[in-house]
Amino acid sequence: MSLAKSAPAYRDLERRFAQLSRLQDIAAMLQWDSAAMMPPGGAEPRAEQLAMIKVMAHEMLTDARTDDLIAGAAAETGTLDAWQQANLAEIRRNHLRATAVPADLVSAISLACSRCETVWRQARATSDFAMVLPFAEEQLRLIREQAQALGAALDLSPYDALLDGYEPDGRSAEIDVIFDDLAQFLPGFVDQALAHQARKPVPIKPAGPFPVEAQRQLGLKLMATLGFDFDRGRLDTSLHPFCGGIPDDVRITTRYDEADFMRALMGVVHETGHALYEQGLPAAWRQQPVGQARGMSVHESQSLLAEMQAGRSREFLSFAAPLMRAAFGGAGPAWELDNIQRVYSRVERGYIRVDADEATYPAHVILRYRLERALIAGEMALKDLPGAWNEGMKQLLGIVPRNDAEGCLQDIHWYDGAWGYFPTYTLGAMTAAQLFAAAEKSHPALRGELAQGDFSALVGWLRANIHDKASSRSTRQLLTEATGRPLDAAVFKAHLSHRYLS
Amino acid sequence: MSLAKSAPAYRDLERRFAQLSRLQDIAAMLQWDSAAMMPPGGAEPRAEQLAMIKVMAHEMLTDARTDDLIAGAAAETGTLDAWQQANLAEIRRNHLRATAVPADLVSAISLACSRCETVWRQARATSDFAMVLPFAEEQLRLIREQAQALGAALDLSPYDALLDGYEPDGRSAEIDVIFDDLAQFLPGFVDQALAHQARKPVPIKPAGPFPVEAQRQLGLKLMATLGFDFDRGRLDTSLHPFCGGIPDDVRITTRYDEADFMRALMGVVHETGHALYEQGLPAAWRQQPVGQARGMSVHESQSLLAEMQAGRSREFLSFAAPLMRAAFGGAGPAWELDNIQRVYSRVERGYIRVDADEATYPAHVILRYRLERALIAGEMALKDLPGAWNEGMKQLLGIVPRNDAEGCLQDIHWYDGAWGYFPTYTLGAMTAAQLFAAAEKSHPALRGELAQGDFSALVGWLRANIHDKASSRSTRQLLTEATGRPLDAAVFKAHLSHRYLS
Repeated sequence: MSLAKSAPAYRDLERRFAQLSRLQDIAAMLQWDSAAMMPPGGAEPRAEQLAMIKVMAHEMLTDARTDDLIAGAAAETGTLDAWQQANLAEIRRNHLRATAVPADLVSAISLACSRCETVWRQARATSDFAMVLPFAEEQLRLIREQAQALGAALDLSPYDALLDGYEPDGRSAEIDVIFDDLAQFLPGFVDQALAHQARKPVPIKPAGPFPVEAQRQLGLKLMATLGFDFDRGRLDTSLHPFCGGIPDDVRITTRYDEADFMRALMGVVHETGHALYEQGLPAAWRQQPVGQARGMSVHESQSLLAEMQAGRSREFLSFAAPLMRAAFGGAGPAWELDNIQRVYSRVERGYIRVDADEATYPAHVILRYRLERALIAGEMALKDLPGAWNEGMKQLLGIVPRNDAEGCLQDIHWYDGAWGYFPTYTLGAMTAAQLFAAAEKSHPALRGELAQGDFSALVGWLRANIHDKASSRSTRQLLTEATGRPLDAAVFKAHLSHRYLS
Repeated sequence: MSLAKSAPAYRDLERRFAQLSRLQDIAAMLQWDSAAMMPPGGAEPRAEQLAMIKVMAHEMLTDARTDDLIAGAAAETGTLDAWQQANLAEIRRNHLRATAVPADLVSAISLACSRCETVWRQARATSDFAMVLPFAEEQLRLIREQAQALGAALDLSPYDALLDGYEPDGRSAEIDVIFDDLAQFLPGFVDQALAHQARKPVPIKPAGPFPVEAQRQLGLKLMATLGFDFDRGRLDTSLHPFCGGIPDDVRITTRYDEADFMRALMGVVHETGHALYEQGLPAAWRQQPVGQARGMSVHESQSLLAEMQAGRSREFLSFAAPLMRAAFGGAGPAWELDNIQRVYSRVERGYIRVDADEATYPAHVILRYRLERALIAGEMALKDLPGAWNEGMKQLLGIVPRNDAEGCLQDIHWYDGAWGYFPTYTLGAMTAAQLFAAAEKSHPALRGELAQGDFSALVGWLRANIHDKASSRSTRQLLTEATGRPLDAAVFKAHLSHRYLS
């Protein structure tokens, strides 16, 4: 926090946003607890606690005093330094988004999402899209209303107004260009990758059982290798792995399967990438909006850089494979480096996004992005979603789901209200490739170091180029400063070609 | 929560206190996390989060709107039912305590306690009372000021005003009578108990190591035996065992020693007693002051009933000893019931309260109670504490500490600001004896059931007589309704004589 003696309104605004940030930190910790620790009886009081914090934070963000302080701070701009100006810009962004939507609409959406999500769970279980349709239609109607209101306030199209909530300054016009390029490339590339793969031995899955505690110890070892600071974080277990908590106390989770250690292990590497970002945010900027992680695509780039660029590289696997063998007493062909690498770079056309490999994943994302754009724009009706989904899958991946449970009902996102989120996955994957290539260029010994389990230069580069800058720059600026150019699909395509065709 | 349609002020007051209670629940959960989960890096942001919640709760409790609502609800008394009236009384109690002390004094005390506690940690380590004396003097000066202010508002003596914060309606005039009686009884009783013990075989401690996971599983088994609801709670580990969380999600902790499983195990039984009380509070009264646990002596009575009355009884140990043998593969004389019981009822004169057995513990408490009364009343200067301590120990227990670290520096309580808390330990022990005797009288098969690991009748009796009533009655009323008379030292003395002299 800065002193800003000559800017009393700005200074009070910092104080107010520090309070707000603490409320959000408390919510983050309670959410972690809900997923990792809480017994079922705690669910109802916890929901009430979180709802109360949400209301308090919303009131703090939208009350008249905040308005006044923002107006006052705007008049002080001349006395603010660059950091303070960047912070004020983030404060205004948060404030604008919070005040653009009427409170009534916010609660109506919250209720509609909660109802829709509940019905969706049953609908997915029975693959019954018609069951959830009326609830999803009502929810989408409200979300579109919200998108209109946000768009009017932010001077954005409705879809971009939603996207901007996950990906600040993200614009669909730019994503269209990048995703269209990728959509052109992918079908042929996947054909080639599968053909290339068919000429190699079929990967053998190491046979378990793999005791949970041994998996956990190995996960902790890899976290330490990557540079996770255990004085400021933990590893626990939850049904859906995630990275939560706060920068000084990052809580990552995984889910163990005693029959397959490889998935949870790479999941830990993935979450560690998220965690390194949080732990790397500047300590002096804590509790201020400019000190937060930039946005979802940058966050995902950090996890995918750890997992896809570094973690599944031949070099890192040559370091990790002996640790795997030692952890489980593994021996034989399944445990050899070549085989481990083949398991970790297996390409397969599948229906389910969360099970998809690196090569086919973007097809899942592009499909969802195109569909949600059309739905939010009102160019498509929700009742036509199943047909459009299956057609898109055929076009992008060459397969057609056998039912809606493995089609348009598979993801929680839309049914829970997260419209405009999907593109950040693939933007993150592309950003990861571009950052890793730039890091390697600036530090040619990088891959050799990964083979020694030495992440210090890689993480040091990320600290200097991404983590240290937090939200002081736009995603585009971050990437341009770090790599010399804005997001460029060519780097990602080159990475895919290198890994899957050579 | 009740409807109270004809009492709008009271109804709003319920809403406000529900919010307040949720804030306190959030703090409770964060405190559990701090002790059981949090890495060191989380400490500073956590302290800020908890301080913010404290300020928010204090503001909610003391702002003008709360004043108005309490005045309004008072005018509605005629329309309130008995439960609502009891709730309103508890609301007024909380409000009166919160508003009686100026905010400046509250923060000065918070600061002074924090400083004093920090210095005390060093002073205890080096047994240097003079080091902490000036900090403790300053803190005590402020605490006495607070006690004066509270006393003036509550029409109580300064000491009783502090006591009342832990033990609502507790009065030193009554405690004096009970403790004086006990202080007369104890020295001779301890002599007799030691003589009686000397005629029996020396207890043999089972030899470890006892793996933590096996200890944990056995602890969980005993928790289940006592009736802990695992859908509404957990067992974890922390440096100082405690019972935290909220009624629908009770978090108890213990600390394992691989060389001695018996202490942690009985600690789990103790905390389970606290937990059963919380889990047994009426679900329909959640988030209202009248729905909370009554006070510290009742709470401690529930843990000591579980541990001292039931847990260390011959009957329960006859059920538990085979489980201990099975858990650790124990065999031989150390694992026989007679020996296990001898270990769990060993009497020894010692300097340290937290290591004291059931028979000598009250002497430690009476000493502290008498000293803190004199200090708060200004009848004794803090500089004279070490001498008075050692004299009191000699009188009550017949031993004199070799230094202040095992004397007046041993407990955190005073140095951290918890004046008026100590008597509740022994009030709790006496209450436990009286409740257990009444339960046994109303259900003569009780001890036989404990020998079968069947706690249902005992816990059912506690539910009906204590848990279900929460704070709807005073401690004295609770005890009188449950046992036919107010607190009576004779029952506790009879229990001690029965266990240690027969």
